[in-house]
Amino acid sequence: MSEVFATAEAVERHPDIAALAVAAAVDIRVSTDAAVASLVGSVTPQGIVAVCGFVDVPLTDAVSEGSQLVAVGAHVRDPGNAGSLLRCADAAGADAVVFSGSSVDPYNDKAVRASAGSIFHLPMVTGTVMPDVVKTLKARGFTVLAASAGGGTTLDDLLDTGRLTGPVGWVFGNEAWGLPADEARLADEVVAVPIYGRAESLNVATAAAVCLYATARAQRSRSDRPSIRA
Amino acid sequence: MSEVFATAEAVERHPDIAALAVAAAVDIRVSTDAAVASLVGSVTPQGIVAVCGFVDVPLTDAVSEGSQLVAVGAHVRDPGNAGSLLRCADAAGADAVVFSGSSVDPYNDKAVRASAGSIFHLPMVTGTVMPDVVKTLKARGFTVLAASAGGGTTLDDLLDTGRLTGPVGWVFGNEAWGLPADEARLADEVVAVPIYGRAESLNVATAAAVCLYATARAQRSRSDRPSIRA
Repeated sequence: MSEVFATAEAVERHPDIAALAVAAAVDIRVSTDAAVASLVGSVTPQGIVAVCGFVDVPLTDAVSEGSQLVAVGAHVRDPGNAGSLLRCADAAGADAVVFSGSSVDPYNDKAVRASAGSIFHLPMVTGTVMPDVVKTLKARGFTVLAASAGGGTTLDDLLDTGRLTGPVGWVFGNEAWGLPADEARLADEVVAVPIYGRAESLNVATAAAVCLYATARAQRSRSDRPSIRA
Repeated sequence: MSEVFATAEAVERHPDIAALAVAAAVDIRVSTDAAVASLVGSVTPQGIVAVCGFVDVPLTDAVSEGSQLVAVGAHVRDPGNAGSLLRCADAAGADAVVFSGSSVDPYNDKAVRASAGSIFHLPMVTGTVMPDVVKTLKARGFTVLAASAGGGTTLDDLLDTGRLTGPVGWVFGNEAWGLPADEARLADEVVAVPIYGRAESLNVATAAAVCLYATARAQRSRSDRPSIRA
């Protein structure tokens, strides 16, 4: 964080945020409503804006020795979905989030807002391509699973046979057309989240929540890693 | 469905939808772009609008003998979240979705769109209040679980001790302030989705996906109900 712009009213409403900025030796520039609004894309700005540096890291730094769970957004185009993927990967304790192919810029203001702070919580990789992601994950001993409604294996099959206990990289494809065939072929397995009712599909963030939490639980049952309650 | 308004271009692009309407003896009124746009709240309308009757049912009809899984949105205000809850409850094979308290009208156009058709797939209840919902569920032998970040029990605790195999009603509260204390007290248990990372919380639809899928899987492991793959 290098600078904060805030209205006087917002500073009064959020003394905790102001105190954090001051403690971090970051200048707070008290600004007019119009000035703050001009910096923000949302219709009802909250009156406070921080200027931050980019936080993404190289792929090889994000996936390190000891990483267990990585979420990959491949061609995820909707900024809300990209932000939700960050938030939900963070909640599920993922070690990193990777955006590949034609995914939306995760620094898009809607993506940052949808991440609810998680963009700052875990290593994030942008601007990479699936062959490099898969190569890096496999070199680190990961099983690479592509989530797809057309998968030949279901998440239940994997849970039933104990195949989610090692390091797992989950790949989530485009909202409309999923994952290109040549990218799906790079995965160790193409996996469907079971649909028990009549819905045609789940959205990206929901499917990711189900896959990542099921994997986190399977990995933790095995390894007795401590779980922290919210 | 009682009537369809569509542009000539949309009929050409979606001959399957036109054929379904004709097969159901529903009139298709070919309309101008402006006429269809005036019926639709979205910025980029898809050129086709169906007029449908209300589909909600009374609480006592929605929760019947043999129901196993019910999702309750309590004071869920965001139409996108209400629609996502319908879609994800449908995918997880829930028997019904109930909106109580000050929840948004699920017939809101954004809610209907976010449900991706699921509003027509499973019984939905609106305009009810938590004491009635809990009373009905308990009379039918349901365990009522309120999802809350402050819950004294975690979802993992329930899974570890096999407490999700019977009929379960999950209650999801308001996006900002959760469930009022007097409503939370009506539940058999207040349950937290574990946060393994640094996220402060999950959004309603994501938390619902995790809770409903974990429950569906626990119930199915017990009962050998068939699972259908998407």
